[in-house]
Amino acid sequence: MKWDDVGQLNCSVARTLAVIGDRWTMLIIRNAFIGTRRFADFQEQLGLTKHLLSDRLKRLVDVGIFKKVPYQQGRYEYRFTDMGRALYPVLLSMTAWGDAWLDEGKGAPLLYIHKDCGKKMIPTMVCSECGDAVTARDVMIQPGPGLYSDANTTQHSS
Amino acid sequence: MKWDDVGQLNCSVARTLAVIGDRWTMLIIRNAFIGTRRFADFQEQLGLTKHLLSDRLKRLVDVGIFKKVPYQQGRYEYRFTDMGRALYPVLLSMTAWGDAWLDEGKGAPLLYIHKDCGKKMIPTMVCSECGDAVTARDVMIQPGPGLYSDANTTQHSS
Repeated sequence: MKWDDVGQLNCSVARTLAVIGDRWTMLIIRNAFIGTRRFADFQEQLGLTKHLLSDRLKRLVDVGIFKKVPYQQGRYEYRFTDMGRALYPVLLSMTAWGDAWLDEGKGAPLLYIHKDCGKKMIPTMVCSECGDAVTARDVMIQPGPGLYSDANTTQHSS
Repeated sequence: MKWDDVGQLNCSVARTLAVIGDRWTMLIIRNAFIGTRRFADFQEQLGLTKHLLSDRLKRLVDVGIFKKVPYQQGRYEYRFTDMGRALYPVLLSMTAWGDAWLDEGKGAPLLYIHKDCGKKMIPTMVCSECGDAVTARDVMIQPGPGLYSDANTTQHSS
């Protein structure tokens, strides 16, 4: 299997990786969550080439994670769509894992304060139904409606 | 900045990406969470070259995500360490996002059943302190102990 085929798999992880699996892309998204919106700012903060940044931003717009919003004649800002903003848990889960396992014993580089309760929080993944924290051992997978969607295409087209 | 320097940043997202930001790596981790342990099985399921798989597995062992456990003379299985198993929220958050935004209108390929409560769950990111679901707008960041760790090195060494 070539990488380009991975996004075609009926797997939400593979599809997600096909969109955000590029490493610079995820750093662009990180910076967008801390408020960066403009090309020059992304470039300065990330230090990647114009060509690479331009390519990644275009892709993020094409896929619907960013929208281009004009802020002056011929200049655009990149702002999250709802789809893009919904990536926050992906960022938080990476942060939490890095804080827990890759801090080199020095503690977390950043603290996350939950505005509503005012406390320092650790992002925690829970079950939407009962609210309990979930680990891999607590979860069972079952085939969903989209699993055999290729096979179903013939039934649904008319 | 070159990609190899990204892992040196005092940022848990950058460090996490330096470890799991390779796309095949995250698919290997996905398959490990559904029970794959052996080289030949990873290779068959993912269809990547022996060379590439061997390289990624070695890296996953070196960094402490997998441990090699002998299962017969000269043959090893790759099993999660605690550090590796702790990546489950990263996988779940990617899954949830892919299910929500990339299902092409066909529904989720897989359903996630929470064994404890028996219900179909949507992985949800909450604050560890109050249990409320968090979005980017609910969270404020502050400098943590590890932010200026390079500067602190001199103070701590003696």
